[in-house]
Amino acid sequence: MSQKSKKVVCHISLKDGVLDPQGVTIRNALAQLGFDDVVEVRSGKVFELTFKPEVTNDVRAKSEEICRRVLANPVIETFGVEES
Amino acid sequence: MSQKSKKVVCHISLKDGVLDPQGVTIRNALAQLGFDDVVEVRSGKVFELTFKPEVTNDVRAKSEEICRRVLANPVIETFGVEES
Repeated sequence: MSQKSKKVVCHISLKDGVLDPQGVTIRNALAQLGFDDVVEVRSGKVFELTFKPEVTNDVRAKSEEICRRVLANPVIETFGVEES
Repeated sequence: MSQKSKKVVCHISLKDGVLDPQGVTIRNALAQLGFDDVVEVRSGKVFELTFKPEVTNDVRAKSEEICRRVLANPVIETFGVEES
């Protein structure tokens, strides 16, 4: 009897209104390359967490705590958790 | 008559087998913080592209070309495009 390990994807993105210099730089580069239909680029991060198959606690709650405490900066970033 | 601008989310992730030192560092940090149910962390990037509302061409094909030419390193990364 083998159990599959549980995977959770954490999406971290900048809050609306927070400046995104990386996104601005990419938008400008795209315009120079001829992709001038793109008016805005916003960057974000993704972390895929793989849990032990035998994890008993609530994986979603645990992942949200990990986002809040470790992965995201709650001052400027928001996060979302998606079980897969 | 106002048109809504079109948004596309580009997901960039490391190919299977490519080392992810950032992910390993986070996994080790999580273990030290007591989150020892997490056995692996893989990191990735997300870019949200906003197109002009009047864009006529195929937005998905254009976004895939942007991923291939600008956002992703095809040697070590894969990408996926999601229209929203």
